[in-house]
Amino acid sequence: MINIEKEIKTTAEKVDAHLNSVLNCEDADLKAVFDAANYSLLSGGKRIRPFIILQFARALGGNEDVALDFAASLEMIHTYSLIHDDLPCMDNDDYRRGKLSNHKAFGEATALLAGDALLTDAFFVLSSANLHPGVLIEAIKLLSYNAGCRGMIGGQVMDMTPELLKDDFERLNKMYSLKTGALIITAAKLGCLAANVLDKKILSSAEEYARNIGVVFQIVDDILDRYGDEKDLGKPVGSDAKNDKTTCLSFISKEEAFEKAKQLTDEAVSSISNIPNNEILTSLAYFLLNRKK
Amino acid sequence: MINIEKEIKTTAEKVDAHLNSVLNCEDADLKAVFDAANYSLLSGGKRIRPFIILQFARALGGNEDVALDFAASLEMIHTYSLIHDDLPCMDNDDYRRGKLSNHKAFGEATALLAGDALLTDAFFVLSSANLHPGVLIEAIKLLSYNAGCRGMIGGQVMDMTPELLKDDFERLNKMYSLKTGALIITAAKLGCLAANVLDKKILSSAEEYARNIGVVFQIVDDILDRYGDEKDLGKPVGSDAKNDKTTCLSFISKEEAFEKAKQLTDEAVSSISNIPNNEILTSLAYFLLNRKK
Repeated sequence: MINIEKEIKTTAEKVDAHLNSVLNCEDADLKAVFDAANYSLLSGGKRIRPFIILQFARALGGNEDVALDFAASLEMIHTYSLIHDDLPCMDNDDYRRGKLSNHKAFGEATALLAGDALLTDAFFVLSSANLHPGVLIEAIKLLSYNAGCRGMIGGQVMDMTPELLKDDFERLNKMYSLKTGALIITAAKLGCLAANVLDKKILSSAEEYARNIGVVFQIVDDILDRYGDEKDLGKPVGSDAKNDKTTCLSFISKEEAFEKAKQLTDEAVSSISNIPNNEILTSLAYFLLNRKK
Repeated sequence: MINIEKEIKTTAEKVDAHLNSVLNCEDADLKAVFDAANYSLLSGGKRIRPFIILQFARALGGNEDVALDFAASLEMIHTYSLIHDDLPCMDNDDYRRGKLSNHKAFGEATALLAGDALLTDAFFVLSSANLHPGVLIEAIKLLSYNAGCRGMIGGQVMDMTPELLKDDFERLNKMYSLKTGALIITAAKLGCLAANVLDKKILSSAEEYARNIGVVFQIVDDILDRYGDEKDLGKPVGSDAKNDKTTCLSFISKEEAFEKAKQLTDEAVSSISNIPNNEILTSLAYFLLNRKK
């Protein structure tokens, strides 16, 4: 029996140890931007995206050091997007994971540059991984495309015009698939590439799995924000409703939403039936479906 | 006799035509960020960095399509840095090259995301170039390192604490070498890589040339800002003095500065004596020394 919470925790510790080493600087003149970048990069979180990379790589027999570089790179991209998202001209959030947001701790200019640095250096970390150049190029294409204006950034742009999402479930789903789905799919495929696997069938299974659990993640988020337990969540519920935010619950009932999430989880699990040693990935899918926080 | 101004203009037109094609989008939902990114990317300029890439590639017998992809990638990075630099939390500039700055034209949030998109997609353009993956990986490492927190961004961080530069010529030079020098060196080396040249001697000649002309560029900038002709420049002189900005003229006289620039130009020219067909690169060095605008 797999203890998935323990697996996630162990992997997060490994990822954190690696992240700790990617942005070191001996140069006092440049210290400000390294400190700001590391403040957000090392501020914890479940490291779900790195977990997906490491588990796909492990299932397919990949080298863990390569997978850790890939994971660091993706987490740097994820972190930069949070720093820039929190800026006053975007969501203007003062707190992130219970700590001051980056610009509140370091000032706006440094936060902007720390985000830029994480984004840029993510590609240095990725391109420095010890893997065949042909596979590395595929990894870089994958990450830059899905983090770019046709991927995650495109989703952020859609999210900036919430009135367009109001009565359009399809467009809401598209926004989510770009804003959060694109990097989850990237994680799954990076895991395969880290194991030197370029097989189209395997990559498309990984993509199918990731696309489904990405949607499940979002549905469960929406449900927890309205119906969750504040004690479990560690934050107030009802923020979506308060902010008049369009979520899947603007279109379907809680029961329908959970039914949909269950069905997508089953599809995610069955899509990786051709991937060996898929037990942990299977557990992860059910864990994300049934999480209470 | 080389007409260097004509060479620069012809190359800029070629680069502009290529830049015009890198960020196309049929998707109306994502149009805002593409429009904002293209607004700055296609707003002209002499395209000196792309010129350097194309000339090194041409001198070494490289394929022009590859060089154009490399040039587009570097110009995307340069453009994102200008967009973010102009933001209110940084230099708060309302105009750039006689046009409204990006955030004045599109709003701060869209400008932030347009910069992020240009930075991210620069790596998509670069990794999609039609060249041996092993060489491409070197190009990606080179660009991400020099645009990152140990390169250009590090220079921007130093520039944010001008009081540290006040009485420290060495630190001022370090700031310049990171903030503008790093990308010029990158341009020269990318040109060699675009021609499939990995030879260390050639790469180090290119680096030496670019380091020197980068410093010359900065010295001449400082001189023109104080002693230039407003009609030639198309902008008021004396802005550095007005803003109490530390420049090389805070430490040495105009004559000493120009003498230094001449000497560095000669060094730049002699450093590429081992590179064939170096006439245009030689002309460029003298053109940058003697420019009046």
